[in-house]
Amino acid sequence: MTEPQRPPGARDVFRGRLVSVEVWPERYREIVRHPGSCAAVALEGGDVLMVRQLRDAVGERLLEIPAGTRDVEGEDPASCAAREVTEETGRRVASIEPLGWMYASPGFLDERVDLYLADLEPGEGAPSEEGIEVVRLPFAEAVRMATSGEIRDAKSVVGILLTAARRGA
Amino acid sequence: MTEPQRPPGARDVFRGRLVSVEVWPERYREIVRHPGSCAAVALEGGDVLMVRQLRDAVGERLLEIPAGTRDVEGEDPASCAAREVTEETGRRVASIEPLGWMYASPGFLDERVDLYLADLEPGEGAPSEEGIEVVRLPFAEAVRMATSGEIRDAKSVVGILLTAARRGA
Repeated sequence: MTEPQRPPGARDVFRGRLVSVEVWPERYREIVRHPGSCAAVALEGGDVLMVRQLRDAVGERLLEIPAGTRDVEGEDPASCAAREVTEETGRRVASIEPLGWMYASPGFLDERVDLYLADLEPGEGAPSEEGIEVVRLPFAEAVRMATSGEIRDAKSVVGILLTAARRGA
Repeated sequence: MTEPQRPPGARDVFRGRLVSVEVWPERYREIVRHPGSCAAVALEGGDVLMVRQLRDAVGERLLEIPAGTRDVEGEDPASCAAREVTEETGRRVASIEPLGWMYASPGFLDERVDLYLADLEPGEGAPSEEGIEVVRLPFAEAVRMATSGEIRDAKSVVGILLTAARRGA
């Protein structure tokens, strides 16, 4: 991300492999920098393929759309999203189109999440990542779970509801 | 937040006023801890009151629903959301009800955002915080902006689309 307004005196207090943290001294701010994420609503006919996995940050297994960090140098977000769909569901992507993008928590975090709608090729597959359970749902059931709070992950709720809006559901 | 699964060897690499960062050594993780947020879709008849303000983390002025950090000891999230509506719009809240809650970015961040639907009392008001512009929109226009990508903030998109789902819009 660009850092257009970094003031004099700003200090990098942590530089990790994933995130870094910047502290601004006068107009006091703690700002978390993240490389950005990609995610896709993966459709096969009237069904959506989601994944359930342990999220250590919250200590829960969450149901989410396939997603990942934009940590491959030079990879565009659509390719990132298609790659994550294949890694997490074991299924190949036939076509992918942009749904939009969002800031996850812009009050202190610069993470931008690029969202896509992916159509899967017919076939079978298994995730290449351990600890990931693939969950197949009728799309209408995913919409119900997004609006009822059974899906807790913000990017998944946004992706599913933007897809529903686009379909006029 | 509870930290139920903090493994031996986890280190606090930063402890700020707002966030802290934990590094797990073996199953390597960088985890950002945040006190949580509250936010409300503030309605007056068929209109919604939103706020536009500079978000330093992303270097842009963003249109969002009123929101804040849960940084007042002992304050429940509904009171937090009602207080933020009044501070940011200058308007009093007549009633408030839960819409749901979400994790902003559970891959590395424990921030939970509690979302409410607030009905405003009739009246006039001005924000008590500097640099905040209050934007009044027909609710249907806010839904259009949330689905078209003109609203970029995840909690605002989720809050508006959950409100629309509840109204059967």
